[in-house]
Amino acid sequence: MTATLRMTGRLDPRDGWTAGASCTIAKSVELLSTRSAFLLMREAFYGATRFEEFVRRAELTDATASARLHELVEHGLLELEPYQEPGERARNRYRLTEKGADLFPVIVSLMQWGNRWLSDTGGPAELLHRGCGAAVSTQLRCEHGHDVELADLDLAPTT
Amino acid sequence: MTATLRMTGRLDPRDGWTAGASCTIAKSVELLSTRSAFLLMREAFYGATRFEEFVRRAELTDATASARLHELVEHGLLELEPYQEPGERARNRYRLTEKGADLFPVIVSLMQWGNRWLSDTGGPAELLHRGCGAAVSTQLRCEHGHDVELADLDLAPTT
Repeated sequence: MTATLRMTGRLDPRDGWTAGASCTIAKSVELLSTRSAFLLMREAFYGATRFEEFVRRAELTDATASARLHELVEHGLLELEPYQEPGERARNRYRLTEKGADLFPVIVSLMQWGNRWLSDTGGPAELLHRGCGAAVSTQLRCEHGHDVELADLDLAPTT
Repeated sequence: MTATLRMTGRLDPRDGWTAGASCTIAKSVELLSTRSAFLLMREAFYGATRFEEFVRRAELTDATASARLHELVEHGLLELEPYQEPGERARNRYRLTEKGADLFPVIVSLMQWGNRWLSDTGGPAELLHRGCGAAVSTQLRCEHGHDVELADLDLAPTT
């Protein structure tokens, strides 16, 4: 049997509660509810800043990209910054906020899983540590510095 | 300016390519395309195995849960296992496959981000290391054991 989380405190027994509307996994998924939102965030991490760049690189229509970028700004994942190239009109560009940049582990985890399970070749690209060239992945670790696995985890109520 | 990934090899310059259909982030998102798929996977990690349990705990209709569980089995994230309680008829229960269990960092990253950014109270629950009680989160690390940040990362072509 595959390991699952152990429930502690008033989360045990599991039959006594449901996650409901306060679940922050559900909230995160709802906010990032579309494929296009993920693709635009991917491109932000890849360095896109201009509207045309997001449209072209995420392969979205102008209308979809515009609607979705507007939502990502509303939700505080991207912010608009005015800029002006010499000889051009003033325009806005998009950049990651701290809240947006903090989504990086989600994007990396999805890439890592897809490279492993949805590609015959290990995926088209991988993340390497610039300092030493070794492949990078997400690791679960506790604040005391221990590496942990699913089987070592307790889900505990915060309040 | 927030850090973004550095592109290397034939991924540099970024203007010379688009991620397109081979992107494993897009593939992963497409496979997990619905809120209900995430909620069912969450419940699998929380230990649900029986259909009724998934329906009740993920707060889905029978029809939605049934369709989505079927897809998750098709995609190889869950598998069906026959079982029989004494005095009851034989039934199936669901359990995580290795492919499904390997999605755990995605779920943890979403929870971690939601707890930080979408909740005033740090979220309803948190993951603790059973051995020492410290809070657990995902950390980016390279195969040589170095902790890395977004600014230390290169995106490199695999082929």
